[in-house]
Amino acid sequence: MPGTPPTRFVYLGPEGTFAEQALRTISAAQHGTRTPARSIPEALDAVRAGEADAALVPLENSIGGAVGVTLDEIAEGAPLVITREVVLPVDFVLAARPGVALSDVRTVAAHPQASTQCRGWLADHLPDAVVVDVLSNGAAAAGAATGEHDAAICAPVGATAHRLTVLADKIADHADAVTRFVLVARPAPPPPPTGDDVTSLAVFIAHDRVGALLAVLMELAVRGVNLTRIESRPTGEALGRYLFFLDCSGHVAEDRLGEALQGLRRICADVRFLGSYPRHRWTATGDRPVPAPAGLSDVDYADAAAWLARLRTGRLD
Amino acid sequence: MPGTPPTRFVYLGPEGTFAEQALRTISAAQHGTRTPARSIPEALDAVRAGEADAALVPLENSIGGAVGVTLDEIAEGAPLVITREVVLPVDFVLAARPGVALSDVRTVAAHPQASTQCRGWLADHLPDAVVVDVLSNGAAAAGAATGEHDAAICAPVGATAHRLTVLADKIADHADAVTRFVLVARPAPPPPPTGDDVTSLAVFIAHDRVGALLAVLMELAVRGVNLTRIESRPTGEALGRYLFFLDCSGHVAEDRLGEALQGLRRICADVRFLGSYPRHRWTATGDRPVPAPAGLSDVDYADAAAWLARLRTGRLD
Amino acid sequence: MPGTPPTRFVYLGPEGTFAEQALRTISAAQHGTRTPARSIPEALDAVRAGEADAALVPLENSIGGAVGVTLDEIAEGAPLVITREVVLPVDFVLAARPGVALSDVRTVAAHPQASTQCRGWLADHLPDAVVVDVLSNGAAAAGAATGEHDAAICAPVGATAHRLTVLADKIADHADAVTRFVLVARPAPPPPPTGDDVTSLAVFIAHDRVGALLAVLMELAVRGVNLTRIESRPTGEALGRYLFFLDCSGHVAEDRLGEALQGLRRICADVRFLGSYPRHRWTATGDRPVPAPAGLSDVDYADAAAWLARLRTGRLD
Amino acid sequence: MPGTPPTRFVYLGPEGTFAEQALRTISAAQHGTRTPARSIPEALDAVRAGEADAALVPLENSIGGAVGVTLDEIAEGAPLVITREVVLPVDFVLAARPGVALSDVRTVAAHPQASTQCRGWLADHLPDAVVVDVLSNGAAAAGAATGEHDAAICAPVGATAHRLTVLADKIADHADAVTRFVLVARPAPPPPPTGDDVTSLAVFIAHDRVGALLAVLMELAVRGVNLTRIESRPTGEALGRYLFFLDCSGHVAEDRLGEALQGLRRICADVRFLGSYPRHRWTATGDRPVPAPAGLSDVDYADAAAWLARLRTGRLD
Repeated sequence: MPGTPPTRFVYLGPEGTFAEQALRTISAAQHGTRTPARSIPEALDAVRAGEADAALVPLENSIGGAVGVTLDEIAEGAPLVITREVVLPVDFVLAARPGVALSDVRTVAAHPQASTQCRGWLADHLPDAVVVDVLSNGAAAAGAATGEHDAAICAPVGATAHRLTVLADKIADHADAVTRFVLVARPAPPPPPTGDDVTSLAVFIAHDRVGALLAVLMELAVRGVNLTRIESRPTGEALGRYLFFLDCSGHVAEDRLGEALQGLRRICADVRFLGSYPRHRWTATGDRPVPAPAGLSDVDYADAAAWLARLRTGRLD
Repeated sequence: MPGTPPTRFVYLGPEGTFAEQALRTISAAQHGTRTPARSIPEALDAVRAGEADAALVPLENSIGGAVGVTLDEIAEGAPLVITREVVLPVDFVLAARPGVALSDVRTVAAHPQASTQCRGWLADHLPDAVVVDVLSNGAAAAGAATGEHDAAICAPVGATAHRLTVLADKIADHADAVTRFVLVARPAPPPPPTGDDVTSLAVFIAHDRVGALLAVLMELAVRGVNLTRIESRPTGEALGRYLFFLDCSGHVAEDRLGEALQGLRRICADVRFLGSYPRHRWTATGDRPVPAPAGLSDVDYADAAAWLARLRTGRLD
Repeated sequence: MPGTPPTRFVYLGPEGTFAEQALRTISAAQHGTRTPARSIPEALDAVRAGEADAALVPLENSIGGAVGVTLDEIAEGAPLVITREVVLPVDFVLAARPGVALSDVRTVAAHPQASTQCRGWLADHLPDAVVVDVLSNGAAAAGAATGEHDAAICAPVGATAHRLTVLADKIADHADAVTRFVLVARPAPPPPPTGDDVTSLAVFIAHDRVGALLAVLMELAVRGVNLTRIESRPTGEALGRYLFFLDCSGHVAEDRLGEALQGLRRICADVRFLGSYPRHRWTATGDRPVPAPAGLSDVDYADAAAWLARLRTGRLD
Repeated sequence: MPGTPPTRFVYLGPEGTFAEQALRTISAAQHGTRTPARSIPEALDAVRAGEADAALVPLENSIGGAVGVTLDEIAEGAPLVITREVVLPVDFVLAARPGVALSDVRTVAAHPQASTQCRGWLADHLPDAVVVDVLSNGAAAAGAATGEHDAAICAPVGATAHRLTVLADKIADHADAVTRFVLVARPAPPPPPTGDDVTSLAVFIAHDRVGALLAVLMELAVRGVNLTRIESRPTGEALGRYLFFLDCSGHVAEDRLGEALQGLRRICADVRFLGSYPRHRWTATGDRPVPAPAGLSDVDYADAAAWLARLRTGRLD
């Protein structure tokens, strides 16, 4: 990353959540300060205010979907850019104070999204336990630690932080659930292309133009830019007014994506660039980068540009 | 609605939430039974099991976006159909026990999404109050009623149910925020076309096909079918695997939409029909139905069908 | 072909041209009358007037391209339909009166398009001969027969008709040149589908609509209809006003093509149906029919139609 | 035009045709040499060989359509470029030797395309005259001058050249028929943009790629490049193998067209640039240049390019 590397990090707290676990995978963060924030807006505002260099916040979960607050907060206000993504397997555990056995558990504290993801396991192993909704995975662990609840569904890091015993691990119904976190900073030149990058955008379409979303997708398709994610979010103005979050394969420094970006800029009401950063491939067997369609590789772009330059000087060879 | 009208209704509880308020706008529900459910899955499962005739659940909010649980629950499991939509202005109020004045308020109970929507008002009028996160708008009102918290951000119906005094109304930062609820039932013939209907679909695209989403939008565009909403949701298989929820203008009984539906059926991995139902126009000044593009009205469809029939018999006049 | 088979044929004369040769490949024409016409308009007008049952005229040549007069004449006036196509290898021969040797040839009569196609052969074998332009291949043969010219470039049938000796055969530079002829009749039900048919259309686009041709191609592409030929022709109104002749794979009786035709009818200023007829595969190694793209076969169309019918009655299984 | 202006001109002869008339409208040609060529290939080969600086040949006629030979000859062989277009009204006249009256005319010499265009006038005024086909308009005039035929259908310049009397003028059925000629030269930098230019291309599509023509049109449409003409021509390889001649609005020096050209270069089997040159507006009431669609003007291109440059340096303002 150009310029001074970040040393002051914030993350969506409290301590002992998956966000902290994700942040600890970044080596700069291992040596810097790591401060929990009460909420996603608080984390991002700390970066905007210059109180922190970067914020780690969740963007989407393979089960629960997009994290709307993160999307909304980076699409509005002073510009921020994503400089890195971290994809983390979501390994829920059932944890309790030392000495509590599975057969003792009558109440389980859990964030509603966590208990939803473990519905099958709970029905099989704790059919009679009462699930008590709490506001975060960290709060669940804390509640088990104080003895308010018999056990908690939480992240492994949460069990450790609250000195709980893990009664069962990998209890989520989808064994391979993951959450994608992003590291967000103030605007700066993007990290250099690696050959397998993601570019994130927030696109505001003109709602009075028929087929506006189709036109957006065509701008990408014509340049062979692969769309890996699309999320709509209400703009807040009225029902039926949306903006779109796009993740594209490629880097802003590349010709192909650069041409597509210019195309979007021209036809959309507004385009907010949210960063180009290396794709995090978290499994050996994960999706490979999609190769450029025939005629749309970087070599083809360079060839076409050279050809056009020759034409303009009257050379037709 | 064809067949016996529904008499047993469930809705996303607890009592005193916007969902109950929305259900009360439906005349059949005014005369039938109205039972709160603990969660959206519970409400929908009651319908699937035949314990209720219809469930009223939130689908999207103009500020918070799609309600992911509702989308997930109707896209999987035994088929259900939307038979009606209700769009309800979201009027948040600040309510407290009788005798409590605004200047007395030190703590405010609120669901995190509610306090987010009222952030501006809180900063202006209660800059020093502590906001305490609770799990629903109904729980906030209950907490104020017991005196656990000084005041609550809740729905008007919640203040009434808990005999609270409204200290301030319309406190949301977006004055015209609305939530869209849908009434969901077991499969049955759709209500007849009204000329201004919505058809909802869940579309599973083939992920190994480049440009699959573009192809979906083209199937609609070529038939002049207007897309009013698109939401992606993870399929749960892996990050980067999405299904799409589409709201289209039109009714399954119409030629235009029927041809587009067949097109989607042919090119998509799967299409789940989620119902055709009248659009709820909740304001006099709201969006009007988009007229069919030139050549794509019902009259044009009928003319083209008649022409083709003539061609097939050898008549070229 | 439904109804009474044609017995009175006209063809583009004079006798001894490729058109006559093509007509003789049709068995009904072998037993009927075969009358040469002075011109393509004369041949087609004989059919329109009921003086002939069918006319055989050239439509395109693999070297010279479309035969504009044929296109213009079938796109205007009383409707006609193509009921059959005949693709004929164009084997030009050099022919002369008996007794004339190649070394004796000083002048060669040829239609300009014929001499163009044999330019390489002439340069190699008769570099010093003078080529005299004449108005048809038949006229060239006649000129050689009278001795006005030493030799003629003509069709084999022309050499035979004028009792000429063939000095060299297959003298065209492109060895595999072919001409495509069509048999044109008054409107009648089309011949039944064979599984490998062509449908010909004349499409008039709305010139004040941007992207009108793109829209035409999209109507076909979305239904998986393969376009095998597209020719523009001026409408005669002004430069820059064109109509388009399309050849599509498929038959008007098929769902897929039927839906595409209706789409064109709706968006185009006018569509003239010019017939559905069996594709003539003239070589064993020729192009094979292009299979329907995934999801666009007749089976897929039938499945989608059945699904839609179920949806409309409330069945979602 | 950059470099030394052309002084040696060839044109499609013989003298006294519309091509000569068109050439005389170019001021450089009025002062240079003007040599008739026997055929279009001969005219173009003279330029290729350096024996002439420029050749004036017909490209299309508003009644007869494209001139296939011209298209074929400029799409193959050593590259040539169009540097200018001349659109000429086609005013056919009936001309005869002095002393011959209309009532004396028994035979009329005419090129077949000319007599076709005057069919209505001949039927009305000379219903009993025999039309004799000849090989060019110039040959018709010559035939009338020698007395071989009573009258000729020819260009005004042909009547003058052969000292004929005009018995009737403007005898074509389409009063406003025009022919478009082009001036063709060896490769050189194109004339500077005028704001209303044409760019001509020969595009060879990959025939094994489904929807290849659709992809070509999309490359243009996405950049807002207007297509004013499209002609298919057989490539000579086999029936069903075509190349396409495109006329686009715009100039190779402009961003918009430059980006579209690069797109075509990348996806097509081959693209031959045939020149950028000023559009000839021959009537005051003729078509006006089509304005760029919203977001696709040169200003929009410049704005988008500047935005992308800022993004790449980390500036998001």
